[in-house]
Amino acid sequence: MFFASDNWAGAHSDIAKSLVDAAGGFASAYGTGDLDKRVEKTFSEIFERDVAVFFVGTGTAANSLALASFNRPGGQVFCHREAHVNVDECNAPEFFATGSKLVPIDGPAGKIAPDALSAAIGRFPPDFVHGGQPMAVTITQATEAGTAYSLDEISALAEVVKKAGLPLHMDGARFANALVHLGTTPAEMTWKRGIDILSFGGTKNGCWCAEALVLFDRSKAQQMHFLRKRSAQLFSKSRFIAAQFDAYFRDNLWLSLARHSNGMAARLASGFAKSDKARLAWPTGSNELFVIIRNDAMKALQDKGAVFYDWPAGPDVKATMHEDETLIRLVTSFATTEADVDTFLSAL
Amino acid sequence: MFFASDNWAGAHSDIAKSLVDAAGGFASAYGTGDLDKRVEKTFSEIFERDVAVFFVGTGTAANSLALASFNRPGGQVFCHREAHVNVDECNAPEFFATGSKLVPIDGPAGKIAPDALSAAIGRFPPDFVHGGQPMAVTITQATEAGTAYSLDEISALAEVVKKAGLPLHMDGARFANALVHLGTTPAEMTWKRGIDILSFGGTKNGCWCAEALVLFDRSKAQQMHFLRKRSAQLFSKSRFIAAQFDAYFRDNLWLSLARHSNGMAARLASGFAKSDKARLAWPTGSNELFVIIRNDAMKALQDKGAVFYDWPAGPDVKATMHEDETLIRLVTSFATTEADVDTFLSAL
Amino acid sequence: MFFASDNWAGAHSDIAKSLVDAAGGFASAYGTGDLDKRVEKTFSEIFERDVAVFFVGTGTAANSLALASFNRPGGQVFCHREAHVNVDECNAPEFFATGSKLVPIDGPAGKIAPDALSAAIGRFPPDFVHGGQPMAVTITQATEAGTAYSLDEISALAEVVKKAGLPLHMDGARFANALVHLGTTPAEMTWKRGIDILSFGGTKNGCWCAEALVLFDRSKAQQMHFLRKRSAQLFSKSRFIAAQFDAYFRDNLWLSLARHSNGMAARLASGFAKSDKARLAWPTGSNELFVIIRNDAMKALQDKGAVFYDWPAGPDVKATMHEDETLIRLVTSFATTEADVDTFLSAL
Amino acid sequence: MFFASDNWAGAHSDIAKSLVDAAGGFASAYGTGDLDKRVEKTFSEIFERDVAVFFVGTGTAANSLALASFNRPGGQVFCHREAHVNVDECNAPEFFATGSKLVPIDGPAGKIAPDALSAAIGRFPPDFVHGGQPMAVTITQATEAGTAYSLDEISALAEVVKKAGLPLHMDGARFANALVHLGTTPAEMTWKRGIDILSFGGTKNGCWCAEALVLFDRSKAQQMHFLRKRSAQLFSKSRFIAAQFDAYFRDNLWLSLARHSNGMAARLASGFAKSDKARLAWPTGSNELFVIIRNDAMKALQDKGAVFYDWPAGPDVKATMHEDETLIRLVTSFATTEADVDTFLSAL
Repeated sequence: MFFASDNWAGAHSDIAKSLVDAAGGFASAYGTGDLDKRVEKTFSEIFERDVAVFFVGTGTAANSLALASFNRPGGQVFCHREAHVNVDECNAPEFFATGSKLVPIDGPAGKIAPDALSAAIGRFPPDFVHGGQPMAVTITQATEAGTAYSLDEISALAEVVKKAGLPLHMDGARFANALVHLGTTPAEMTWKRGIDILSFGGTKNGCWCAEALVLFDRSKAQQMHFLRKRSAQLFSKSRFIAAQFDAYFRDNLWLSLARHSNGMAARLASGFAKSDKARLAWPTGSNELFVIIRNDAMKALQDKGAVFYDWPAGPDVKATMHEDETLIRLVTSFATTEADVDTFLSAL
Repeated sequence: MFFASDNWAGAHSDIAKSLVDAAGGFASAYGTGDLDKRVEKTFSEIFERDVAVFFVGTGTAANSLALASFNRPGGQVFCHREAHVNVDECNAPEFFATGSKLVPIDGPAGKIAPDALSAAIGRFPPDFVHGGQPMAVTITQATEAGTAYSLDEISALAEVVKKAGLPLHMDGARFANALVHLGTTPAEMTWKRGIDILSFGGTKNGCWCAEALVLFDRSKAQQMHFLRKRSAQLFSKSRFIAAQFDAYFRDNLWLSLARHSNGMAARLASGFAKSDKARLAWPTGSNELFVIIRNDAMKALQDKGAVFYDWPAGPDVKATMHEDETLIRLVTSFATTEADVDTFLSAL
Repeated sequence: MFFASDNWAGAHSDIAKSLVDAAGGFASAYGTGDLDKRVEKTFSEIFERDVAVFFVGTGTAANSLALASFNRPGGQVFCHREAHVNVDECNAPEFFATGSKLVPIDGPAGKIAPDALSAAIGRFPPDFVHGGQPMAVTITQATEAGTAYSLDEISALAEVVKKAGLPLHMDGARFANALVHLGTTPAEMTWKRGIDILSFGGTKNGCWCAEALVLFDRSKAQQMHFLRKRSAQLFSKSRFIAAQFDAYFRDNLWLSLARHSNGMAARLASGFAKSDKARLAWPTGSNELFVIIRNDAMKALQDKGAVFYDWPAGPDVKATMHEDETLIRLVTSFATTEADVDTFLSAL
Repeated sequence: MFFASDNWAGAHSDIAKSLVDAAGGFASAYGTGDLDKRVEKTFSEIFERDVAVFFVGTGTAANSLALASFNRPGGQVFCHREAHVNVDECNAPEFFATGSKLVPIDGPAGKIAPDALSAAIGRFPPDFVHGGQPMAVTITQATEAGTAYSLDEISALAEVVKKAGLPLHMDGARFANALVHLGTTPAEMTWKRGIDILSFGGTKNGCWCAEALVLFDRSKAQQMHFLRKRSAQLFSKSRFIAAQFDAYFRDNLWLSLARHSNGMAARLASGFAKSDKARLAWPTGSNELFVIIRNDAMKALQDKGAVFYDWPAGPDVKATMHEDETLIRLVTSFATTEADVDTFLSAL
């Protein structure tokens, strides 16, 4: 009953096997080999556009490099207060984009509202040198609250962003989960709605270690080669990432895995709907559930071996909670089984 | 006939298989799982000392984090002019240790001489604020010239370093190759001879992607956790690196692989010794050969499909070369076969 | 009727004259001359302690260097949301302390409350590498809201800070104004109450360009020499700053000037107390007044040549304002005359 | 007999007086006042071109900001090995342009030769990501060796620089001294010969603290506002710098002062020409003399109170020196008198 995080799972067997298959033979290094090039082409097909792709080792690297590519002196990056870049990356974004700052914006269920974004940007009038200057906006899809922005919500944010002349980044650590939740296409969820650059995550959805920066604006690609190398993210045997993505995309494995983990989350949600000891804090749009649970029930679950994290509740959620309740997070993965879920629910 | 680099090889089958074996089941993330801890213990056994180990994704990351852990304002890092940190890492060391500088030192066959090091450090008298302050010394073992420092040479450098009150880093991208060449122990080649921190490379010797920072001075370990995370080198499914090292150390696979690639280099060297078209620029101490070759012979080899790089010759080597000769580098790997070598030599 | 800022004034005649007096003769450069050393001693006398003093060119430099001297990877600096370091220094603090982050804390009248500070620090449990680690706390005295922390308020904050094992910085851009308002001593307002490092400002109080970093913890002094030089803040003819401070401290000129500007602010405040068109947003503790004023009255003042800035109102103040009112800031200086104030008040 | 450095002098009386004159009255801060604007215009007149001017506090700041404005990931800046940026600024250039590197080039008498520059740049082929990428070239005029590049020498370097698509910076800490030595115009010595950005120094030539960045390429001006503020170099009472430059340019004071100090250096040189105890290491082109002197004569001078520094000799100079000789540097200034020189020479 491991619901702590989707990164507690290992790798899907197809991914692991792909690494075995690619292990033999010689290939030119640092991303210039045939397999790397072939997989990069697959990205362009999937996104219905000629994109630039950069493999990196972690989601933090992808996010930080994306923001660093837009760096300006006194640069302000607008993000949700609970964004992974803001609270879970040990200042890597500030380090990669030296001298930049993250400006946190509040919003319920992990989402930034267009008005709030507009107001935040508005605090930096052009040429007010003391305050610095706006530099980029980043959103997470699916969000850190397990929700997913609708396509129209993305468009509405992009409109504010473009009006301010800024680039828009998407942290897609759980890109596939949001995608299958919305039932849309990768192109539609990104560049067609105004995304300029994407952190495309494979690790949380069944890979060992496979993350990619996808640049819809190829003019940033030349410098990204140097940014990536300078940040020690250019792998010599880069094909070990390519091989994972190769299997990931083959026969739409990635979508199947995301559908599975979303389904396990939905199965959990159905169970909670029938319980009087716990309820969802808000509806999920991915493989993450945030649940308000009675402390005794939580304790009982943990005693029976269930693993999950409690989570800090924002003021809006806190207002709906009783004193003897806790907010917890449950994450399912490609490796979660129906039996895992059902054991958990009966333990509840 | 691929002799371009040892990173053109893939992964040894045992390494790849280990990734398959570790793919199932759940484990706590970010390096806290059982496999990670077990492999860390193996490091302590191998180095005969209680070491702190940090898995990272690239040798550049290991080197840059090592130096960053010693960062001081105006800090000067002393290295060989042709050191990987100086010429092949796109300023990652300067980026990780913001505001620091690499001070290049010349020396034949890729080695720094104690006198030269002493003189270089001496240019920074204490409290001369304008020049900055010494911060660290880094050497590469095996060197970028394919040679290996003898144990006494390491001791002699360490003596200069300690006298200056500085820490000493070893870039061990080809650690195993130097180790088996010297026929010594990991402890003897490092902390027993004055090394404070080591970049321990597995990738060039048969892993997919397995590098480790080894801290003999554990007092730096606490901040290294933050340094690593901040540089986006903390892998969520960290066990994918641990699994590689697990196979790497099992039954001394790593030493066997290094012996093999060194042997292939020796076989090449023997071949060159019999040729009148090419000669070694200097004796090798690992799996890298630097060869002065007649241009027509080089061309003929390339036409027959041999892959290798030409290399900039230092002034001392240049003085021994004719106009119709070129300096080339040949690198063997765990995947190089006797047949590869013999085909190459007969093509010569 | 210039009330825009105290940095719109020039320099007090004694300060300017001191620069003339010091202009002749030769003196060793970079802060090693006799005048520099003598003025540094004066600092120690004034603070009743053997302090380390570093002259720098701007308050932003002093603040940023202070925080940089405590830098740690993933470091979090706690400050008031409206702190100068957070909103008026174009990310200089983040730039100087590469990879660090300012964590803004809300609080009425420009002050941080101990509970709020404690809660903010508490979000960074030791060894939770993802969030980074606490690094320093900074407060401003007088605050950006023109108020002054009482001595007990400083002690209460320092207690929280010390319990967390952190250093405490004071931004004293208007140090003298707060000092004479509280009627206390420099020692009492700083190290006796737990301040570790102080940005001591002279510029806003009658100097041309005279700021000093005062280190109560001399163990940081050695590296500060390098930090200052590396940030291009070590002046060759450093005595031009020393000469200003020399005049500044002579016969307690600095206290007289601060008393004067505070007095002018009080005179303004008295005037507002009698007006039905305007009222203080909160009581002042220095030479800055924040005033809620009727828009028509504001317009009339501006038409008559009064110069001042409007200011963003926090939620607590906004709640007390009518729609036809604006929050404005008025700053007096050593150069403000009673006539200036009286003209302004009668214009009102 | 103070010949240690031109920054041991104080300020010319006209400069000091100008500060007194400007001390009264109110003016808008941060470089937006009338005096600032007027002096900026004077710069455009002097340079016969509409330039962007940024006042800063130190030459190190000017140099570091200039290079930072061209920053690129993995950026390589080419400079003379003995350049002030390389050996006397405590890594400020590397700090301001985070992650960049200075590539030192050797050359006699403080000058870079076009061939050597071309070769140095040539080591960074486009798209070889490992080595990084060329970013800028910087030369010093007058050089750190007291020589001055001729106009044709500047043109020849600029040709190499432009061919490589790079910007060219001039460190003009002793700009006026080189200018009067060459007998040319500011325009001719800079943008007409290919300089893109200039550190224009006033401090060493009679100001207290007056340095300016002059941008011939105005497209860099917008970001420079933020770069300057972020580096804590935007002075609130910026007119204290403007006032110095105001006096500096009035009636060509700056040229008179430079002519005087150059003249004093020439007078010293004449004296050495008649001595058998000392000789010039190379001809001077400014107010700096490098002299090879017999140790006993050096000692005798010091005993009689002469103040100067000895200097590290390069290999070419060393080859011409005897064992009992030392290389020393003598610097004259606006404040050096004929009597100072004559006393020194008779002491010799």
